[in-house]
Amino acid sequence: MIICRVIGHVWATKKEERLEGLKLMVVQEECGPGKKTYVAADAVGAGIGERVLVVSGSTARGVFKQGDVPADMAIVGIIDDLETEKNRQADSGGEVRPHGHSG
Amino acid sequence: MIICRVIGHVWATKKEERLEGLKLMVVQEECGPGKKTYVAADAVGAGIGERVLVVSGSTARGVFKQGDVPADMAIVGIIDDLETEKNRQADSGGEVRPHGHSG
Amino acid sequence: MIICRVIGHVWATKKEERLEGLKLMVVQEECGPGKKTYVAADAVGAGIGERVLVVSGSTARGVFKQGDVPADMAIVGIIDDLETEKNRQADSGGEVRPHGHSG
Amino acid sequence: MIICRVIGHVWATKKEERLEGLKLMVVQEECGPGKKTYVAADAVGAGIGERVLVVSGSTARGVFKQGDVPADMAIVGIIDDLETEKNRQADSGGEVRPHGHSG
Amino acid sequence: MIICRVIGHVWATKKEERLEGLKLMVVQEECGPGKKTYVAADAVGAGIGERVLVVSGSTARGVFKQGDVPADMAIVGIIDDLETEKNRQADSGGEVRPHGHSG
Repeated sequence: MIICRVIGHVWATKKEERLEGLKLMVVQEECGPGKKTYVAADAVGAGIGERVLVVSGSTARGVFKQGDVPADMAIVGIIDDLETEKNRQADSGGEVRPHGHSG
Repeated sequence: MIICRVIGHVWATKKEERLEGLKLMVVQEECGPGKKTYVAADAVGAGIGERVLVVSGSTARGVFKQGDVPADMAIVGIIDDLETEKNRQADSGGEVRPHGHSG
Repeated sequence: MIICRVIGHVWATKKEERLEGLKLMVVQEECGPGKKTYVAADAVGAGIGERVLVVSGSTARGVFKQGDVPADMAIVGIIDDLETEKNRQADSGGEVRPHGHSG
Repeated sequence: MIICRVIGHVWATKKEERLEGLKLMVVQEECGPGKKTYVAADAVGAGIGERVLVVSGSTARGVFKQGDVPADMAIVGIIDDLETEKNRQADSGGEVRPHGHSG
Repeated sequence: MIICRVIGHVWATKKEERLEGLKLMVVQEECGPGKKTYVAADAVGAGIGERVLVVSGSTARGVFKQGDVPADMAIVGIIDDLETEKNRQADSGGEVRPHGHSG
């Protein structure tokens, strides 16, 4: 999975019929040099600004009950907390907080 | 999915027979540093200049009724509007407009 | 699909037996910053110097009748013409010519 | 597979139900210019700081008994030793040690 | 396929049981700007220093008889010779030699 931030919505009236009813979100990679932007179908009710887990390829397609939706990226989790070694040592009050630490 | 702009057509007389009848479009990534160019089979009647949603891999192959077309990228939607946090705050009359806002 | 130029051949005596009989070509990406080089199995009789359409992954595997060849890239079309907006406006006699225009 | 270092954990209360019970680790690529960060489901009991082998795509999905988990990256091995030509010649006491060499 | 050089071995005692018995090699991309390093399961008896063909994804998994090995990269051929236009014109005695040319 990649870690993304939900940054927007996409509207497409003319689309493959099996995409009907899916919520298509604009997500941006949080990590890595590229910070690429993608469109992912939402499976968990994610909102703008939330950090999410995004899967790709045939795995994304399998997330939806129908099984044959033409979507190759899906949001499968909303990140509550992300704890890394780096955070623990150097960053105690930033946006990426240790689990259970309220700030 | 990736967000692309349709920028052209490809003609190939000599090709795998199962590609026969597919409309092959040249698409260019809109987001990210690379802005790579690809060829995608069109499933929704997209035209030059339109912004579209493009899927890859086995998902693209599954878009076409035949099921076994040797195409690994497909246009599955034409983007009407793309609303992002960034647009809403900083960009009120640009090309990327909030949904339902006529400029 | 990606747009590549065929730039060479590969010989491999010692190889997975199901690759036997496939013509393995060296192809180089035409578009994008990377211009990476790959090896693709040829399904359409492409020659050195030709511009071709290349598919990847399980789609490439499915191009060959046997169905289970261990090849993850395949040449599926020889490009006759590639017409883009950019070409039409700025480039009237270059290598990338409008369709049906003989130079 | 790619070689990664485990650098953290991810907590996500709201997630696709089939991710329930999987341990989601933050991993960072060890090699290559990007050093991208991903989230992978752990199949071997890896700990923070360990170097691991990570698989992607449908291969990752197949690692878990259920078969249909919506995870497209999985940790499938903990690296004891990694011996390369470069190490053998130039690097005799560094972090990447020849196999069976205790330092 | 990508063209890689075999540069080392990986040892992993703790690993997904279906990886047992596979020879895991460290391979480095020969072409392209990145020259990324990967780990691939060897299907052809490749040795350190050899140039090889590497497949990825579900294609790699299918190389092994068991069918369900959790490996997403496999070495499927040892390159004897690689002839490209560039070599033929400018490079007559280098490491990349025309086929059948003994130097």
